[in-house]
Amino acid sequence: MLNPWFWLAPAGSVLALVVAWLFYRNMMAQDEGTPRMAAIALAVRKGAMAYLRQQYRVVTVIFLCLTVLFAIMAYVLKVQNGWVPFAFITGGFFSGLAGFFGMKTATYASARTAHAARQSLDRGLRLAFRSGAVMGLVVVGLALLDISAWFVILNQFYPPSEGPGSLVLITTTMLTFGMGASTQALFARVGGGIFTKAADVGADLVGKVEAGIPEDDPRNPATIADNVGDNVGDVAGMGADLYESYCGAILATAALGATAFSAAGGSAQMNSVLAPMIIAGIGTILSVIGMLMVRTREGATQKQLLGSLARGVNSSSILITVISAAVLHLLGLPNAWGVWGSLVTGLVVGIVIGKSTEYYTSHGYRPTVAIAEHARTGPATVIISGIGTGLISTAIPVSMVSIGTIMAFLFSSGFSFTNLSMGLYGIGIAAVGMLSTLGITLATDAYGPIADNAGGNAQMAGLEKEVRERTDALDALGNTTAATGKGFAIGSAALTALALLASYLEEIRIGMVRIGTTAFEVGGRTVETASATLQELMAHFDIHLMNPLVLVGTFIGSMMAFLFCGLTMQAVGRAAGRMVEEVRRQFAEKPGIIRGEDEPDYARCVAISTRGAQHEMVLPAALAILVPIATGIVLGVGGVMGLLLGGVAAGFVLAIFLANSGGAWDNAKKYIEEGNHGGKKLADGSKNPVHGAAVIGDTVGDPCKDTAGPSLNILIKLMSMVAIVMAGLTVTFHLL
Amino acid sequence: MLNPWFWLAPAGSVLALVVAWLFYRNMMAQDEGTPRMAAIALAVRKGAMAYLRQQYRVVTVIFLCLTVLFAIMAYVLKVQNGWVPFAFITGGFFSGLAGFFGMKTATYASARTAHAARQSLDRGLRLAFRSGAVMGLVVVGLALLDISAWFVILNQFYPPSEGPGSLVLITTTMLTFGMGASTQALFARVGGGIFTKAADVGADLVGKVEAGIPEDDPRNPATIADNVGDNVGDVAGMGADLYESYCGAILATAALGATAFSAAGGSAQMNSVLAPMIIAGIGTILSVIGMLMVRTREGATQKQLLGSLARGVNSSSILITVISAAVLHLLGLPNAWGVWGSLVTGLVVGIVIGKSTEYYTSHGYRPTVAIAEHARTGPATVIISGIGTGLISTAIPVSMVSIGTIMAFLFSSGFSFTNLSMGLYGIGIAAVGMLSTLGITLATDAYGPIADNAGGNAQMAGLEKEVRERTDALDALGNTTAATGKGFAIGSAALTALALLASYLEEIRIGMVRIGTTAFEVGGRTVETASATLQELMAHFDIHLMNPLVLVGTFIGSMMAFLFCGLTMQAVGRAAGRMVEEVRRQFAEKPGIIRGEDEPDYARCVAISTRGAQHEMVLPAALAILVPIATGIVLGVGGVMGLLLGGVAAGFVLAIFLANSGGAWDNAKKYIEEGNHGGKKLADGSKNPVHGAAVIGDTVGDPCKDTAGPSLNILIKLMSMVAIVMAGLTVTFHLL
Repeated sequence: MLNPWFWLAPAGSVLALVVAWLFYRNMMAQDEGTPRMAAIALAVRKGAMAYLRQQYRVVTVIFLCLTVLFAIMAYVLKVQNGWVPFAFITGGFFSGLAGFFGMKTATYASARTAHAARQSLDRGLRLAFRSGAVMGLVVVGLALLDISAWFVILNQFYPPSEGPGSLVLITTTMLTFGMGASTQALFARVGGGIFTKAADVGADLVGKVEAGIPEDDPRNPATIADNVGDNVGDVAGMGADLYESYCGAILATAALGATAFSAAGGSAQMNSVLAPMIIAGIGTILSVIGMLMVRTREGATQKQLLGSLARGVNSSSILITVISAAVLHLLGLPNAWGVWGSLVTGLVVGIVIGKSTEYYTSHGYRPTVAIAEHARTGPATVIISGIGTGLISTAIPVSMVSIGTIMAFLFSSGFSFTNLSMGLYGIGIAAVGMLSTLGITLATDAYGPIADNAGGNAQMAGLEKEVRERTDALDALGNTTAATGKGFAIGSAALTALALLASYLEEIRIGMVRIGTTAFEVGGRTVETASATLQELMAHFDIHLMNPLVLVGTFIGSMMAFLFCGLTMQAVGRAAGRMVEEVRRQFAEKPGIIRGEDEPDYARCVAISTRGAQHEMVLPAALAILVPIATGIVLGVGGVMGLLLGGVAAGFVLAIFLANSGGAWDNAKKYIEEGNHGGKKLADGSKNPVHGAAVIGDTVGDPCKDTAGPSLNILIKLMSMVAIVMAGLTVTFHLL
Repeated sequence: MLNPWFWLAPAGSVLALVVAWLFYRNMMAQDEGTPRMAAIALAVRKGAMAYLRQQYRVVTVIFLCLTVLFAIMAYVLKVQNGWVPFAFITGGFFSGLAGFFGMKTATYASARTAHAARQSLDRGLRLAFRSGAVMGLVVVGLALLDISAWFVILNQFYPPSEGPGSLVLITTTMLTFGMGASTQALFARVGGGIFTKAADVGADLVGKVEAGIPEDDPRNPATIADNVGDNVGDVAGMGADLYESYCGAILATAALGATAFSAAGGSAQMNSVLAPMIIAGIGTILSVIGMLMVRTREGATQKQLLGSLARGVNSSSILITVISAAVLHLLGLPNAWGVWGSLVTGLVVGIVIGKSTEYYTSHGYRPTVAIAEHARTGPATVIISGIGTGLISTAIPVSMVSIGTIMAFLFSSGFSFTNLSMGLYGIGIAAVGMLSTLGITLATDAYGPIADNAGGNAQMAGLEKEVRERTDALDALGNTTAATGKGFAIGSAALTALALLASYLEEIRIGMVRIGTTAFEVGGRTVETASATLQELMAHFDIHLMNPLVLVGTFIGSMMAFLFCGLTMQAVGRAAGRMVEEVRRQFAEKPGIIRGEDEPDYARCVAISTRGAQHEMVLPAALAILVPIATGIVLGVGGVMGLLLGGVAAGFVLAIFLANSGGAWDNAKKYIEEGNHGGKKLADGSKNPVHGAAVIGDTVGDPCKDTAGPSLNILIKLMSMVAIVMAGLTVTFHLL
């Protein structure tokens, strides 16, 4: 019999999926506007779906290979349990499904949002927000569904009555489905990121800079590809990304709970495993409530709209802190106040990181305004000051995560530095706390690209100027809320990666028992593998800060973050180059295009970006999967621990740097476009070189913030997941 | 009585200083050329000396503060020994002296080299090379002098006959003088780096881009400041930098030798302490021999010149491998072949990193040519591909250092992963091996800026075009050899930082004994502090990879590298902005300047760069010193270990990225200037936009490769040195 509290998780899942379906149906019932608007939306939708089909085809092949590998490990080499291949597949499948639904909704919503914006700003906001909410709800709904289903199934096979080992086995098996989600997310982020930025950079370079036509001009052959890119990168990619973060945090924490309380066993262990799932379930229900609170009266000002969005998000956050305190106590968790402290710590850290992101990237604050000022001395100083700002902007998030890590650890461990298992469980709970209301934060995040696409639709369909102004206002509104979302994604990635370090050691322990190493010597004493502390396990494998294998592992982990970004940046550069040549070719061969007489060949540009992305995403993704495996085989357990630590320490900071530099460049450009430093055009009608310099900064920032940066969040967790799944192999290789 | 082999170190020192003096006298005897050439050289020299005076004034204040702090720690708090303040001062003083002599020589050599180049390429090469050699020899000569002198003095007070503890005390005290050198080097690199790039970026932006006048044109008011910058940044800064690397590697290895053999004691301990000094002494003698081999017959081709330089460097490297094998055996070092293996590993790693640097940054290879091709689609794609190339270029150096670390460890430890002390000694020896022939590698490095300045002199003095072509050829020649030098600097910094991790723990041990913690418990057993293994010390302080303090320390260390770079990049941006405004003002107020009728106010530009650099260097440098102290007080020993590990892991990779991106952009521009993709000017005489795009890349790369990147090498070691010197305070704070 499962603990009845458990059912809050599937209940949250079902509620989320039902509400998502209602929002979707409601959106579909709206009018798409003029035939031209519908035709443009159709072109974007077809391009996006064609991309996704191609992407899933490639990913399916890779999943098949990995599944076969895991099957061999489980059934032939016997270094993993038999559920692993299946858990892996479902993780990938549900992640892909979340991206698919999110993108389908977004592509249907763009023309409808543009049409709604023709009527009023308010209607536009609500439609865009509810369409974004579909994505947020589908992500958390499917994640909780997958988690609940596996938990129920595995509970049948390994009932808790068989002892505390059952829950450890169940939760570590479920981690494999985290690896499936991470793998899918990596391909979605890298592939989508390359697609969208190749199209964006290509369209901007030839369209805006060379031909001097505005953004989203229908004469630009790359413009449909650019809008497709927003969907495949910012919607489908982000959906898969946050699906992975959400699952990763919950699963890692559940696994840590199972081991932290494995000595206590019984209900303490069960409840600590259930706690992250239940909190997520409640957070989802609160997200739905928060979404329904996002209502405005007709004719609300933009400030009121923002206040209305914020009310929804803030209510969910405040409610979750109150309700989780009650639930943790009702669950009878030992040290319930401590665990609650960890959870609140996570929430607070996420919010502060979001504020810091906003400070460094919004043109309402000094840093971005300063970058815009540097545009007066040309593109070089824009780039230098943007890089400088991005580098400096790492200080607050890293400090916050550092303080949060220590506090979350101490709260849950009862202020003891040696109670590792409980302390690490607290770090996991902090990540879960940060992501608990993901449903609504993701809704405010996903609505940005929908508004962006609506703007593209309005521009291409030649709608009134004020419609474009309204969609731009919606887009700008989304930028502020998106900053908070990014803060949560980055912060939770760092905390989850730390928690996964412990899961890795636990998996190593399981691997040792599997191959018969039931006891080992440490410091002259013999300890049983099953009951050894984490400290004793580390001592056994010589995992300390002077072991050259650990040090070297740290170097390689740090290098992996840089190398991975380099490969994705280069991929964007190459794919964008091909796009530029294609657009130039079309302009040259059909001079009628630029006069608005000939129709450009949009589909060809979409195909070029698709091919480029598919081709280029394989190498970086393969590296992310193969390096942890190779490190395990060559450098052993210590080397892998170093790799994971170096990867998260450098990758986390690098990700913030890239995201914030890119965001600041983007908004510095927007600041100038609002009329500062001369605006877009000078008084004599010529192009303003100050704006030109800022556009170059924005273009450089595009792959930083939308391809390389977000992929890093996934990379650091995927490396951990691979290490965990491969732990059995590493142990077998090094101990037999 | 000192071991007679020791005298090889002071002998090398004296030889180096004498030969440097001969080279200097010989250079001074040459003709400075026309009065105009002499006047320009005088202006540059005066500017450079004025800068250095100002810089040393600021640094003196900081040194006084730190000395007072150390005196309080030593005499009032009694948490350090009484030699520390004095050792600290001499380290800083000698480092400053090396920079001063190097720069003095370089500023006298520029006009003379230009004049020699009027006669022949060959004469120019020899004069520039020998002037660069003065710097190389002064650096190693003064370093060995300081090391030898302190070793002799401290041996009088703590004679080895008093037991193995004497040598441990002597070598750890000497590490403090490493901190003096690191502090001086940081200010020299950061201050000099900001000066040179503010002047360079400012001069390029207004001169080349806006006014369209060539590099080093006398009409550009910032041109003297630009040439001053080459001297204060690339000569004085680099001299202090490598002085610090050289001392750091030797001192860290000596300290590790003292502790690794403290159980054995006697001659084994003494000889392992002496080994790095003796190897350095021999390497210096071999460097002088190598320099004398750099001779060419009149009218040699550039290829022959390069061959002649390479012959000198290669001979020194081959000779040191042979002779050190003999010396290590004659010294009777236990496991002499193993230690020799570590030394050769270091040399090989340095050479491979140099080759990799050359591959990624020279326009003779694909990566840089590809960046130049991206210039056809504008500045944005140049920047994106340069960032991508730089990120990818981290893979080979990090892999090489990783392999080298493990091999150097295993060779010296007799292929045991648990024999930590010996293994870490091996890592130190590898760094010493890499730097042993620094005298000659630094000569080939320092000659680049001299050739560059000679070119500036030729241009400003209006010499024949072929003279400028010859100095450009000399400069290009220097770029190849400089790549090797950079490889050695970066590789040795990483290895030295790893070795310093162990020195830190040893210093903690000394601190524990000082405050009376003569024994502690670990795993239920009581061990004596003095004889505890490093593993036991780490266990005592809970230093492991699951301790949240260690994890957080790693995050902060990683962040420090990014934040530090951000601060220095922003400093360059601000200082360059002021320079641009000053030059624009001069052009606007005196239109005669651009027509060549009015003399620009060079001195004012020099003063602006000087003030900017002095003002801006304080914050990043203060951070580098204060963060390790604060980390020690707040997070304790484990936090500091994490900080140092995170700092070296992220800082090392970030330094390679910045250096190689910058180098590649620089050479991509040169590649286009050689006539590719249309060269500087199009057929119709207008500016080639492809070249313009490449110039923007080069400008962005300037602060990356000459300010932020090289400073990181020093940062990671300075943080270690600060931690070591402050270890007594940390221990007192956390154990009492």
